[in-house]
Amino acid sequence: MSKLDESEIIKIFQRKLGNKNSEDVEIFKLKQNIIAKTDTLVQSTDIPPKMKLGEAARKSVVACVSDFAAKGVKPQYGIISINFPSNISRSKVEEAATGFRKACSEFGISILGGDTNAGKEIVFNVCLFGSAEKIVPRNGSESKDLIFATGPFGYTGAGLSILLYKKKGKREFVAKAIKAVTHPKPRVDFGVKNKRYFTSSMDSSDGLSTTLNEMAKQSKKKFVINNSPHKKDLGEFAKSNQDNLVFHGGEEYEFVFTINPKHKKTILKNAKSLRTPIIEIGYVTTGKGVILQRDNKDIPLKDKGWKHFR
Amino acid sequence: MSKLDESEIIKIFQRKLGNKNSEDVEIFKLKQNIIAKTDTLVQSTDIPPKMKLGEAARKSVVACVSDFAAKGVKPQYGIISINFPSNISRSKVEEAATGFRKACSEFGISILGGDTNAGKEIVFNVCLFGSAEKIVPRNGSESKDLIFATGPFGYTGAGLSILLYKKKGKREFVAKAIKAVTHPKPRVDFGVKNKRYFTSSMDSSDGLSTTLNEMAKQSKKKFVINNSPHKKDLGEFAKSNQDNLVFHGGEEYEFVFTINPKHKKTILKNAKSLRTPIIEIGYVTTGKGVILQRDNKDIPLKDKGWKHFR
Repeated sequence: MSKLDESEIIKIFQRKLGNKNSEDVEIFKLKQNIIAKTDTLVQSTDIPPKMKLGEAARKSVVACVSDFAAKGVKPQYGIISINFPSNISRSKVEEAATGFRKACSEFGISILGGDTNAGKEIVFNVCLFGSAEKIVPRNGSESKDLIFATGPFGYTGAGLSILLYKKKGKREFVAKAIKAVTHPKPRVDFGVKNKRYFTSSMDSSDGLSTTLNEMAKQSKKKFVINNSPHKKDLGEFAKSNQDNLVFHGGEEYEFVFTINPKHKKTILKNAKSLRTPIIEIGYVTTGKGVILQRDNKDIPLKDKGWKHFR
Repeated sequence: MSKLDESEIIKIFQRKLGNKNSEDVEIFKLKQNIIAKTDTLVQSTDIPPKMKLGEAARKSVVACVSDFAAKGVKPQYGIISINFPSNISRSKVEEAATGFRKACSEFGISILGGDTNAGKEIVFNVCLFGSAEKIVPRNGSESKDLIFATGPFGYTGAGLSILLYKKKGKREFVAKAIKAVTHPKPRVDFGVKNKRYFTSSMDSSDGLSTTLNEMAKQSKKKFVINNSPHKKDLGEFAKSNQDNLVFHGGEEYEFVFTINPKHKKTILKNAKSLRTPIIEIGYVTTGKGVILQRDNKDIPLKDKGWKHFR
């Protein structure tokens, strides 16, 4: 019995269902365009030790919000489906419900309903809806565009290695890294405000290398990365593992976008006023693939981000 | 640690989220009314022995379609979220995908996308969308209205007792009862075609007694049931347990509706032309609660339908 990875499973479904959409969100017409996105958080896979159930509930909302942010759309409504083990305690249910309530208030989402089910483990499935005339595509970048990421990257991977594998680090760094796992901040205001300047964009939560490769591939361009979007303290913690944490982690809930250079000043100004950290990481050129440029050497940056079923 | 039943969990969520919708489907406005409904099928809870994965996939779609049918709305689009154990085989994935494809083709639904996840057990979460100016409410019945159910009822409960507890029965009956579990038929054409005649309606898949009690309560009326919607062969199988199977089972994916008596002839004619079996089961009157009228005696029919976490 051969093990399948996620992309194989998706391919089977796409083939069977005739669905070829490969965007961050679903877009469909019922007179106007409704934007929808679903995401599932599973206890055994997605909730590391020490993460509270309320934080997990919020994170299951964040995972969807982040895709909306990348597309420049504000989510307005949501449906939540929940599985709990049949012996779940009232306090755990309260904790989850509170997490959802706070998250919905934080992001201005009205929950329409959903369903609850008994199952072997906790599962949170969130489906969010918004509306827009159009979305920023993954495939719109042009040669000479600048590549930006909201960020920084690497803390989430560091946090997971601390929570899952008890890796040690400086106290202040450990707190910051764990918070990146338990309380990620999607950049929805920045996305909505600046979408008109983006030639392309994509949520990075499957990993920065996965995101950059997908964007380059869909645009039929080469992405040259000459600046790694991390902060100094990551280097002290990660040592030789730094690129791995920055480019091949995942669950950052940041996004990558490309702009025409003429909009750089505006974007930087808007980022400052919204207090959203953004980092210029490279540029688009003719060719294909993703190149990491370092010390005047070109290193191919392969897609090695997060996959379920790997 | 006290065990919670589903209604308690729902109440906690409704309180926390400020969501008081108690309809079969979610209705929300994004310029026009989009109708949405989500339902989750969990392996350990909802897939009995001998039920194939393709049948389970179809049933997870049916569970949503049935709610649309009751509201007189045709579902048009869907999003599917799936959890599989990480050692799932390709053939199982194919089987599930085929089940979804066939179900979507059967009901004319386009799948927009979704997500796949690793988990301890199989979970199918389906969210469907349609559009309508308004829906048939649960609370619209008037005194003297007639109460109908699409049907018949009882086969599903019988089928589950055969599959789960190895109860014996006549060969032909056993086949029919198992098919009711593995291949339920939601009555979406009948619902869409006749919605204008319904004063109220509700999907019955949580159990007929639950449905009748909810409709009576929401309409602030008494529902008098003088005809049990079952066929003779159920009586032979069930013996003294017959009422239990008919009224307190669940997962029938039929629906209950009320009409003004003047529309009875039209409804019967439409049912015949659509080959949808419908059964007149009683009438609406002033008062409250649900009464089962039998041999000139009035027996209260309590809400004893299906609940998760019971």
